[in-house]
Amino acid sequence: MTKSPEGEHPVKAFGWAATDTSGHLSPFNFSRRETGDEDVRFKVLYCGICHSDLHCIKNEWGISTYPMVPGHEIVGEVTEVGSKVEKVKVGDKVGVGCMVGACHSCDNCVDNLENYCPKMLLTYNSIYTDGTITYGGYSDHMIANERYIIKFPDNMPLDAGAPLLCAGITVYSPLKYFGLAEPGKHVGIVGLGGLGHVAVKFAKAFGAKVTVISTSPSKKNEALEHLGADLFLVSRDPDQMQAAVGTMDGIIDTVSAVHPILPLISLLKSHGKLVMVGAPEKPLELPVFSLIMGRKTVAGSGIGGMKETQEMIDFAAKHNIKADIEVISMDYVNTAMERLAKADVRYRFVIDIGNTLAATKP
Amino acid sequence: MTKSPEGEHPVKAFGWAATDTSGHLSPFNFSRRETGDEDVRFKVLYCGICHSDLHCIKNEWGISTYPMVPGHEIVGEVTEVGSKVEKVKVGDKVGVGCMVGACHSCDNCVDNLENYCPKMLLTYNSIYTDGTITYGGYSDHMIANERYIIKFPDNMPLDAGAPLLCAGITVYSPLKYFGLAEPGKHVGIVGLGGLGHVAVKFAKAFGAKVTVISTSPSKKNEALEHLGADLFLVSRDPDQMQAAVGTMDGIIDTVSAVHPILPLISLLKSHGKLVMVGAPEKPLELPVFSLIMGRKTVAGSGIGGMKETQEMIDFAAKHNIKADIEVISMDYVNTAMERLAKADVRYRFVIDIGNTLAATKP
Repeated sequence: MTKSPEGEHPVKAFGWAATDTSGHLSPFNFSRRETGDEDVRFKVLYCGICHSDLHCIKNEWGISTYPMVPGHEIVGEVTEVGSKVEKVKVGDKVGVGCMVGACHSCDNCVDNLENYCPKMLLTYNSIYTDGTITYGGYSDHMIANERYIIKFPDNMPLDAGAPLLCAGITVYSPLKYFGLAEPGKHVGIVGLGGLGHVAVKFAKAFGAKVTVISTSPSKKNEALEHLGADLFLVSRDPDQMQAAVGTMDGIIDTVSAVHPILPLISLLKSHGKLVMVGAPEKPLELPVFSLIMGRKTVAGSGIGGMKETQEMIDFAAKHNIKADIEVISMDYVNTAMERLAKADVRYRFVIDIGNTLAATKP
Repeated sequence: MTKSPEGEHPVKAFGWAATDTSGHLSPFNFSRRETGDEDVRFKVLYCGICHSDLHCIKNEWGISTYPMVPGHEIVGEVTEVGSKVEKVKVGDKVGVGCMVGACHSCDNCVDNLENYCPKMLLTYNSIYTDGTITYGGYSDHMIANERYIIKFPDNMPLDAGAPLLCAGITVYSPLKYFGLAEPGKHVGIVGLGGLGHVAVKFAKAFGAKVTVISTSPSKKNEALEHLGADLFLVSRDPDQMQAAVGTMDGIIDTVSAVHPILPLISLLKSHGKLVMVGAPEKPLELPVFSLIMGRKTVAGSGIGGMKETQEMIDFAAKHNIKADIEVISMDYVNTAMERLAKADVRYRFVIDIGNTLAATKP
């Protein structure tokens, strides 16, 4: 056994990896650990492409290690379980999202908020407890401690359900935590991309009145007719924005580009909450006076804990919520990344790993 | 009856006013309305000098109207009540804070949050319902609708209690609303001025562990020995700040100068809250990523409603909380303003209106 990705573990694995900051992905042989007592191994069938995959393969956050197998919206079928696993059995449909580990003893872990544990381990590009690098879902199979395994409901499609493991929980969790998941609340959703389009669906399912706020007037029909939003605001239209001042209980802001938030704060009622789930690289301008005048809040929220992620997927299955996706083959991934960089996708690429990965093996 | 300040109302009044942006105050004859059914008239005994008085007399917020009689930490003795007044009687000790009116029908007013009513009327420099300018407490007597009258508890000193009507409620309200008014919470207080020093006292009375965060190492003894804080952090000392990362449930930030908030956000535990009660003139830099990583909040809070202001003064009386003050005579007010601009006061000037105003009458 060597220390190379191919030889460091006993179980052979195959996927696609980025090997440098060009972000170009190519076929890659590596390995995964044996199935431990609490581990669940599964054959990957689908994996969503999250915008953060694109950031990571290009090292745009400065934290990347290569070779990198991206992917944290992973769905598949269980092939092996450890002796102590109780949650699932061989043949079950399961998923893994953004995390594969945490300390399990801090206040956040005890509260089922592993996502805020200081020792949280990401599904890829983290150093696992055994000292090896974690590899994500652009690969033939996956293994994780059962705590990080999500049981997929029978009626949830595997392909269109995959993006919920990241995009879904990222918007579901703040809607709940910040008191916006209630009938009669008026919720704004800023940005209509991978996160925004499922945010609209969840907020509507909770019974809220939903307004989509976008820079693009072209998205109006899509927001209202296809996604079921109640209202649409063009953020660059001062008259439209002025007419909506003080009307919203909360706003989920999914935009990760630098943008002004004063107009969004103005849309809030007193005591309203602007929740940022996209992280601009540079600080935004915070107008403190506008917060004070209405006891308003600007907050951040990052994914969600495992218990809540299961709750989210069960809720989604019950309310027929899924992502709008474009299914692609593995060998299309580099083209997909180029299109994603131009926001040319409605709304999430999902790789058909099960049917197309094997054919790319050299 | 003329439309001049002296003739527009039937009841003669005398105080000190600023007449232009120099901010210089001088003796001023004006008038106040007759006592309406719901009005309470009282002889002013003490009035605190709030830092916002200084901003207003110099028109630093661009919203000033002259002549201006400042003062919104007003305490005195009731001399006349309207026929429908139930709250107080002649001879009672009462106070008026920052507000003298609101719509009384919006959601905020119904919830006893007149301070967030869009039609809230300030104690001075607002246009009252009768179309005349409101005048504050640097004057011989005051009149207000009984809703805006605070009953002063018997054991609360009138002079040291006056600043609580603004500084006290400004910090009491967010401690309560943001869940920091509980034993065992760790609360940071940024800035040790008029607001900060009473914030320490309230937070301690609620049973919290209190850390004062200041740019001035010289305030350490004062914070710990005199005010009773548990810990003191010099915000410019990276080692001290690093050692306190992730330890606080919430922070009340009283600083109204532009300052970095990333170091303060770093002091918060996950789900912690940074509450701004000072309003810098320019936007601050908001580091969104640091909010997302711990589901943290930056919020604003402005004074408090009348019901909560009464609750605050009763709580303060019960727990022997009062402001640390320097009592001055009316003719010292211009010197006091100069010292206040240099933060040369520990911690609040209070004008002895009852004993010194009349002598300044020309």
